[in-house]
Amino acid sequence: MYETLTWEVDADGVATLTLSRPDALNAFDLTMARELEQVFLTDARDDAVRAVVVTGEGRAFCAGMDLSAEGNVFGLDETLSPTPEEFRASYDAEPFASGVRDTGGKVTLAIHALPKPVIAAINGPAVGIGATMTLAMDIRLASEKARIGFVFGRLGIVPEACSSWFLPRIVGIQQALEWVYSADILTAEQALAGRLVRSLHAPEDLLPAAQELARSFVKDRSPVALGLAKQMLYRNSAAAEPLEAHLTDSLAMYWTSIGDGKEGVAAFLEKRAPAFTGKASALPRIV
Amino acid sequence: MYETLTWEVDADGVATLTLSRPDALNAFDLTMARELEQVFLTDARDDAVRAVVVTGEGRAFCAGMDLSAEGNVFGLDETLSPTPEEFRASYDAEPFASGVRDTGGKVTLAIHALPKPVIAAINGPAVGIGATMTLAMDIRLASEKARIGFVFGRLGIVPEACSSWFLPRIVGIQQALEWVYSADILTAEQALAGRLVRSLHAPEDLLPAAQELARSFVKDRSPVALGLAKQMLYRNSAAAEPLEAHLTDSLAMYWTSIGDGKEGVAAFLEKRAPAFTGKASALPRIV
Amino acid sequence: MYETLTWEVDADGVATLTLSRPDALNAFDLTMARELEQVFLTDARDDAVRAVVVTGEGRAFCAGMDLSAEGNVFGLDETLSPTPEEFRASYDAEPFASGVRDTGGKVTLAIHALPKPVIAAINGPAVGIGATMTLAMDIRLASEKARIGFVFGRLGIVPEACSSWFLPRIVGIQQALEWVYSADILTAEQALAGRLVRSLHAPEDLLPAAQELARSFVKDRSPVALGLAKQMLYRNSAAAEPLEAHLTDSLAMYWTSIGDGKEGVAAFLEKRAPAFTGKASALPRIV
Repeated sequence: MYETLTWEVDADGVATLTLSRPDALNAFDLTMARELEQVFLTDARDDAVRAVVVTGEGRAFCAGMDLSAEGNVFGLDETLSPTPEEFRASYDAEPFASGVRDTGGKVTLAIHALPKPVIAAINGPAVGIGATMTLAMDIRLASEKARIGFVFGRLGIVPEACSSWFLPRIVGIQQALEWVYSADILTAEQALAGRLVRSLHAPEDLLPAAQELARSFVKDRSPVALGLAKQMLYRNSAAAEPLEAHLTDSLAMYWTSIGDGKEGVAAFLEKRAPAFTGKASALPRIV
Repeated sequence: MYETLTWEVDADGVATLTLSRPDALNAFDLTMARELEQVFLTDARDDAVRAVVVTGEGRAFCAGMDLSAEGNVFGLDETLSPTPEEFRASYDAEPFASGVRDTGGKVTLAIHALPKPVIAAINGPAVGIGATMTLAMDIRLASEKARIGFVFGRLGIVPEACSSWFLPRIVGIQQALEWVYSADILTAEQALAGRLVRSLHAPEDLLPAAQELARSFVKDRSPVALGLAKQMLYRNSAAAEPLEAHLTDSLAMYWTSIGDGKEGVAAFLEKRAPAFTGKASALPRIV
Repeated sequence: MYETLTWEVDADGVATLTLSRPDALNAFDLTMARELEQVFLTDARDDAVRAVVVTGEGRAFCAGMDLSAEGNVFGLDETLSPTPEEFRASYDAEPFASGVRDTGGKVTLAIHALPKPVIAAINGPAVGIGATMTLAMDIRLASEKARIGFVFGRLGIVPEACSSWFLPRIVGIQQALEWVYSADILTAEQALAGRLVRSLHAPEDLLPAAQELARSFVKDRSPVALGLAKQMLYRNSAAAEPLEAHLTDSLAMYWTSIGDGKEGVAAFLEKRAPAFTGKASALPRIV
């Protein structure tokens, strides 16, 4: 179905997405970009999917943009020369959508928009877009053999894929600036010390640990409550004042309290597992 | 005076607010919600109060929403079905104020609006709203026996009380997402490692340590300078650019420099304790 | 050329700016304020300068505002009494520009606006504005003998120089509030534990380490890519949603991909050092 990735969903609703160009260290090309955007906008939206784990086939997670590709590596149209105002006004329409919009960002916006937990299982080198795509995933686990590099500066380009939004929120602005300025390859230990990754694992334990964590997030949980919580945490991490959170909280509490929350409270009081019926594909609108 | 809490102010202006439904592990009900909002909007605003320490009576801090309450646990009106636009336009008026607005958020907005240091002394289990109410307090100290849980996901509801605004600012977005997804009960050590709490203490040392910290914040300090600093740090942590901070800084420096700052500088040069006359109830307007 | 500071640029483009009022522990006065603003708006903008390291002469970094100065210490005009609306509308025009605007903030806005790495080498006491000016620098290294204090509260004034924007982004809101409330002098170890400084160094190793770090950031790097990355990380750390980052990312990737990125990719594929021709003085406009 996909050329550059595999997609499997287990009985618990935990999907495993594997970047699969092992001979090229899973390097990111325009086909992989299209397929990643598509899998997050379609397959991952199925209500049978409760959480997604992303990993790489073979010894790498993703070696970055495939710079050996023929022709226009970044997929840009050099004749356009947009002003910021022009681009902002129609970034989602042609010719800007295919000739200016950052390819990596299309992928991370699709990941970010999924109202379900997404976990990166970084099994080896994750460089360039291989590093920045994981920032839009909610939680990062890494193999002790992982290596992570925001290497853009060495190539004369900038960190992309919305990484300047995510990275400071994960590791703080000082660490984000140093890693981007240095453009160095970090060891797994450095990434852990800087709080970029949540935990380190022996290579063979990594994927099972990520899948088990995903399973623990969704077992006996309301997909509606999880999806709203994800939206609220990201949105309000960037909101101007607590009142903004109060407005989204109130509506999310309102709808869940008279929805899956009724079953949740009943099950709690009756000391039994809840049987939620809400669907992530039908989240109440809170903004 | 209050049914569900006690309020005491010592000679240094350090108030101790104690959640006092010990037989119910200080569970939060609609009476406690009203009383907490009231104490922060009235008693705590008295200029004789310089800082507030919040703790729980008995072995718990607050076991969360009292789910055993009769009738409408969350105080919502199921007939309203507000759209986001309707709610946003009149969230503070009836019927939305009492039928949709999140009860916990009313409390945390009142805590947040107090221009004085507020310190949580988490003496035992703090679960659900018992955990999220502490996020609007400026600093959290915990007993080694504290347990903290953002357990909403297990009940089919969402984290509330503006916690999606505060939690990522305290612990970063990755840790916030994991704790909300997992809905687990954290040990005191886990909360410390994740930077949710500032320090751990033996049970009998916790309240004195929190009160001593509060005292150190206000002794020989200008209530105006403290109150403005609190407003500036929260507001500008969420401002779009440093220029926004420069605008509030300038006005706050202007008014304090020709106010309590004159006494502060004079006392410094004369090597004596300052005698400030400014009042937190009359902060200059900086926004 | 300058009364209160020295400015030297080495062959690698690493400038060293030294606060030089050693007999006054490099205390900050209105002359130093003017000179710091000027050096960042003029000398540091020269394309021959690739990065800036800031340190202090003698045993201090900067002992704070020179409170022993005659007359109006803060340079304010007490007769103005601006409302927030009046000030916001014309903060950059007289009489507000010289009579109300925070002096420290003029300096930190100039530092922040420089599209090049700025590194603080905190060699000794850094107190008041001596501490807050370093927050607008991208990365802070400190001597084991450094002492850092946000001591404003003891003087009846507020933290300034846009510190309420920077400090929570560096150390989190809980730590920021505690340090501002306590107004204590932190040891170098405390500053490291709280993630305010990136690393500690023996006194004699500090300046060489900071200069070496600066050199590692700029060697074989595109000044355009570095300058855009700095702007993007700060701007998007405060943006409302990832889409904002996607808009700036896309334009920054577009212009660098067809600019220095071409040379960067070519050099990478040819396994040679790149010869970038872009200039920080001519960054493409991305907002």
